[in-house]
Amino acid sequence: MSVPGTKSGEDWLQIGEEMHRWIAELFPICRSITGNGVRETLRLIQKRIPLTIQEVSSGTKVFDWTVPLEWNIRDAFIKNLRGERVVDFRKSNLHVVSYSRPVNQRMSLAELKEHLYTLPDRPDWIPYRTSYYKESWGFCLSHNQLLQLVDKEYDVCINASLTEGHLTYGEYCLPGHMQDEVLISAHVCHPSLCNDNLSGIAVATFLAQWLGSQPRRYSYRFLFIPGTIGSITWLSRNQQQVARIKQGLVLTGVGDAGPCTYKKSRRGDAEIDRAMAHLFKHSGKTHSIIDFIPYGYDERQYCSPGFNLAVGCFSRTPHSQYPEYHTSADNLNFVTSQSLAESLSYCQAAVDILEENKTYLNQNPHCEPQLGKRGLYRAIGGQAGEKSMEMALLWVLNLSDGRHSLLDIAERSNLPFQTLAQAASALMVHSLLALGPGHELSS
Amino acid sequence: MSVPGTKSGEDWLQIGEEMHRWIAELFPICRSITGNGVRETLRLIQKRIPLTIQEVSSGTKVFDWTVPLEWNIRDAFIKNLRGERVVDFRKSNLHVVSYSRPVNQRMSLAELKEHLYTLPDRPDWIPYRTSYYKESWGFCLSHNQLLQLVDKEYDVCINASLTEGHLTYGEYCLPGHMQDEVLISAHVCHPSLCNDNLSGIAVATFLAQWLGSQPRRYSYRFLFIPGTIGSITWLSRNQQQVARIKQGLVLTGVGDAGPCTYKKSRRGDAEIDRAMAHLFKHSGKTHSIIDFIPYGYDERQYCSPGFNLAVGCFSRTPHSQYPEYHTSADNLNFVTSQSLAESLSYCQAAVDILEENKTYLNQNPHCEPQLGKRGLYRAIGGQAGEKSMEMALLWVLNLSDGRHSLLDIAERSNLPFQTLAQAASALMVHSLLALGPGHELSS
Amino acid sequence: MSVPGTKSGEDWLQIGEEMHRWIAELFPICRSITGNGVRETLRLIQKRIPLTIQEVSSGTKVFDWTVPLEWNIRDAFIKNLRGERVVDFRKSNLHVVSYSRPVNQRMSLAELKEHLYTLPDRPDWIPYRTSYYKESWGFCLSHNQLLQLVDKEYDVCINASLTEGHLTYGEYCLPGHMQDEVLISAHVCHPSLCNDNLSGIAVATFLAQWLGSQPRRYSYRFLFIPGTIGSITWLSRNQQQVARIKQGLVLTGVGDAGPCTYKKSRRGDAEIDRAMAHLFKHSGKTHSIIDFIPYGYDERQYCSPGFNLAVGCFSRTPHSQYPEYHTSADNLNFVTSQSLAESLSYCQAAVDILEENKTYLNQNPHCEPQLGKRGLYRAIGGQAGEKSMEMALLWVLNLSDGRHSLLDIAERSNLPFQTLAQAASALMVHSLLALGPGHELSS
Repeated sequence: MSVPGTKSGEDWLQIGEEMHRWIAELFPICRSITGNGVRETLRLIQKRIPLTIQEVSSGTKVFDWTVPLEWNIRDAFIKNLRGERVVDFRKSNLHVVSYSRPVNQRMSLAELKEHLYTLPDRPDWIPYRTSYYKESWGFCLSHNQLLQLVDKEYDVCINASLTEGHLTYGEYCLPGHMQDEVLISAHVCHPSLCNDNLSGIAVATFLAQWLGSQPRRYSYRFLFIPGTIGSITWLSRNQQQVARIKQGLVLTGVGDAGPCTYKKSRRGDAEIDRAMAHLFKHSGKTHSIIDFIPYGYDERQYCSPGFNLAVGCFSRTPHSQYPEYHTSADNLNFVTSQSLAESLSYCQAAVDILEENKTYLNQNPHCEPQLGKRGLYRAIGGQAGEKSMEMALLWVLNLSDGRHSLLDIAERSNLPFQTLAQAASALMVHSLLALGPGHELSS
Repeated sequence: MSVPGTKSGEDWLQIGEEMHRWIAELFPICRSITGNGVRETLRLIQKRIPLTIQEVSSGTKVFDWTVPLEWNIRDAFIKNLRGERVVDFRKSNLHVVSYSRPVNQRMSLAELKEHLYTLPDRPDWIPYRTSYYKESWGFCLSHNQLLQLVDKEYDVCINASLTEGHLTYGEYCLPGHMQDEVLISAHVCHPSLCNDNLSGIAVATFLAQWLGSQPRRYSYRFLFIPGTIGSITWLSRNQQQVARIKQGLVLTGVGDAGPCTYKKSRRGDAEIDRAMAHLFKHSGKTHSIIDFIPYGYDERQYCSPGFNLAVGCFSRTPHSQYPEYHTSADNLNFVTSQSLAESLSYCQAAVDILEENKTYLNQNPHCEPQLGKRGLYRAIGGQAGEKSMEMALLWVLNLSDGRHSLLDIAERSNLPFQTLAQAASALMVHSLLALGPGHELSS
Repeated sequence: MSVPGTKSGEDWLQIGEEMHRWIAELFPICRSITGNGVRETLRLIQKRIPLTIQEVSSGTKVFDWTVPLEWNIRDAFIKNLRGERVVDFRKSNLHVVSYSRPVNQRMSLAELKEHLYTLPDRPDWIPYRTSYYKESWGFCLSHNQLLQLVDKEYDVCINASLTEGHLTYGEYCLPGHMQDEVLISAHVCHPSLCNDNLSGIAVATFLAQWLGSQPRRYSYRFLFIPGTIGSITWLSRNQQQVARIKQGLVLTGVGDAGPCTYKKSRRGDAEIDRAMAHLFKHSGKTHSIIDFIPYGYDERQYCSPGFNLAVGCFSRTPHSQYPEYHTSADNLNFVTSQSLAESLSYCQAAVDILEENKTYLNQNPHCEPQLGKRGLYRAIGGQAGEKSMEMALLWVLNLSDGRHSLLDIAERSNLPFQTLAQAASALMVHSLLALGPGHELSS
């Protein structure tokens, strides 16, 4: 399987550029938590992976929540009385507060200003705002635009509908040898914002494409859902299946140029938590691992106490730590091909660890087996120093007592997981190792 | 309930000054481990709280110890042959080694010197010495006084009695909803010394007064006892009740201007240990937390292996780390109103945590409840950043799975306990939270 | 018993010098994993301790290994055609790769060079090389010697035999009150190398001599074995007895001037691991404690997963960290009398801890006993400050609840083990302490 470094730099570069081009296709669509923008996005994903699209009616009870009315928007603007669009939805879909109710009215500037959102500290950027659960309307604009609104009255129009309809999400399952599942979740509810979260959609989609061609011990479930209400809806409709989810990742903000961040699951010591920590530690790069907090993305729902799933969140710069977050500056320039490719490579490597993290039994547990006669050890003795593969063989033998998985051994030995996995393979070939109980031989 | 910061600075200043004035009243009394000085002290405490005074006869067996003879002193001096008192008990009751046997004798300076104690390094200070369990006598004086003793002979008098009598201590119980008790213990055996331990007597007394007016989940037991033999006597006479003591604090040296210190109970992770650590951490002030050692104050007895009570020791500068300790320099100038008030506020805040540290059950454990529709969450989404109360609500919901108390949640979230307690109250109002098993609803 | 510091410096110096002189006697012998060099070495050890010598036939199966042919060597050289020995086994037994097959042949320099080993970075040193399990032959020489080989042809002779014979090892058991054993293991397979491992042989032998004159709670087993194959052979032949081994040390490289190193057992928290850590911590010297890795000396076998014995490895500079390792520079100048003596003193002190690390029961667990009336506590109270023995008495009493051994108490109190052992003795004398369950009174 592919791990960081095994594909050539050029291969990864091409993959990164392909993701970036695809993000550019998805960028103009006006997504929200419901509506045609989500449907259009899911159809574009369907061109790459055979996604199932689900529609859930407005008004459906999902735990403590209710699926909201469907929102669709056709046009919106603020016009001066000379008929000039001074704020124009056609130029950026961020200009309208998501879920704004329809408006069509002349009003005074003073009245209008109560519905305007700007970022005074970043006067060129348009903020992104939503009002899903409180009926309201508003416009987001750059602070410089606001300063130019000096007329007494304006014509304000939001040509949107907020009606009974559906919440839409996409789901893709890749069966493996086991019914145990790995969940990959990305949200699809943000309009023209690139890092949050077209980057997550792209990495999840490309990960799914790659996994489709791999042998799989685990089954994999990919969710492309509107944030919060989408994960709540999925969990509510799939309560019988939740117990199958053994590991998972929420992918978000994986395209910016910052260092990688992993936010642990609520459990804190789940296999996925340890796999990500292992990868980061051996990456030789700056990274950060942060403890779970009940704030952030859909891991909030997956890690609610009634589920407590082993789902962490993989991103680059955490959302609260870059100024471009939820502004028009989170655009196609903000995400890089290189970061997208590297994020994908981490996800693939994490999958590799989950797939290969088995517990073995040393078949010769009393003293070391004689590795030399099997060609696994240097012939001439006496030199100081250890060789990494010989050490990996010795570690795997020493700790394969049925109580240590390969990841346990990696943590204790400080050797890379893949080196230990290769050692385990070599020892299996020589019948010095057997799979521990609980592992299917077929995998 | 009151916590540091909720009373105005002026209120606390008044309370501190009132404690200091009261300490000045108690200061002149010559206390020891038995005798009328203890009785007089307890009677002054009785003017503030309805203390029960207990008398235990000399000779009573208390575990490995025996209640000693009662010691009372009327006068003592060293006179030169010109009849001048060169050392005079009437000037300072520290001048006589506590429990000195009666003496009335002319003796050579050489003979006398074997009974004199000074502090050569602090030539103006009088040391404090005791000889409770070995019959002896002695005088403590400043080193400068000693240097002036140049005559050949002196008349030495200690007009004291060491006779069958009683050991006296005071006890005050405040019942709560539960029989489980919190113990507050202060020693009352030191003569004219302020920090050690009139400060502890004052803070314990004012804490008791405050608690009398508060709703109480726990019952509270205040002990005003002679050090070591007093706690041993109480424990010996109350073995049936000891098991009720779930938490406790020994209060000592709580009036000096140094930073606060908490010495953990022998258990090290008791609720009181964690409550004090939490308060210190969030105080924004310098402080220190030290591990239990079997040396110090009455926590030595409460934490003996046969009891192993969750009793820690709260003080400011540890006794071994200030030169004024057990000298005449531990006087009314050494303790400050401000420190006394702050020490009291920590005790009250610790009590608040013990009272409010309950385990709740999230009534909507599958996914987050929709806080917005209950007015508990911001309406307009999209901004980065968290608000402390919203985070507190999310933390309480996320960890209220029946296995985490509010203090557990405070430790994991790094939020102040009181913020979480307020969040829990708000969630209780909305029926999103219920008290976990084991909590009485009435409290 | 003896601990570091109790013998005078002069005594230890004499012992160190005696060890160094004995190492000088053992130095010239050409040892390997089998053969007469091992037998001669064991006979010299027998002059000091009544070692049992075991012979195991070539071809014997020992777990995954087979006892190899016996190797003996009489002479070896490389001669130029003028008949001059340019490399001469009689000058250093390191010159021949251990287990070289017999050779007697004229050959070209090019052909010869394929069998020559040098250390270009250390041009004056001869390396030490072995080829036990792959039939081969070779010479080790200094790089400067190699540079002088300029002739076209040389006469090469290794007058050795590789024949059916025996593997030889020595064993010495010292019975104690308990059948539980402490294992001390040193390898005896290295030719003229001093630190690795004549130092280990010497310290093990002197430790055995000392232990023979001591009362013993544990039984002690000393093994003098060829590395790897020797420990594997012993373990294979003594599988019934292995379970008796409760603690152990591999001694190796204990004579160089570097700081002491302890490599923990695979368990990591065994009593021997904690005893060594305690000694190091209180030594006031630089030292290092390293985690177990499955590479090094015979602890690899003792700590293989089928045995997982509590056996650590005591050395000074770790083998991979000094350039003299496995070269002719590991000679009589490289080991010092002082280091040998200090290493022995650590071993004795570790034995003392194992012998004395008992769990006691405070006979007066409710409150402190009155130490003063038993003469165990100062008479005049009031002074600040603690005395080490009084603190030791208080700690032993406080923690002797049946769940803390003396070593547990040492770790928690940060007092030296021996101070606590003395305190326990004093408390036993006064019947304030009793041995906990599981301890034989006779010990």
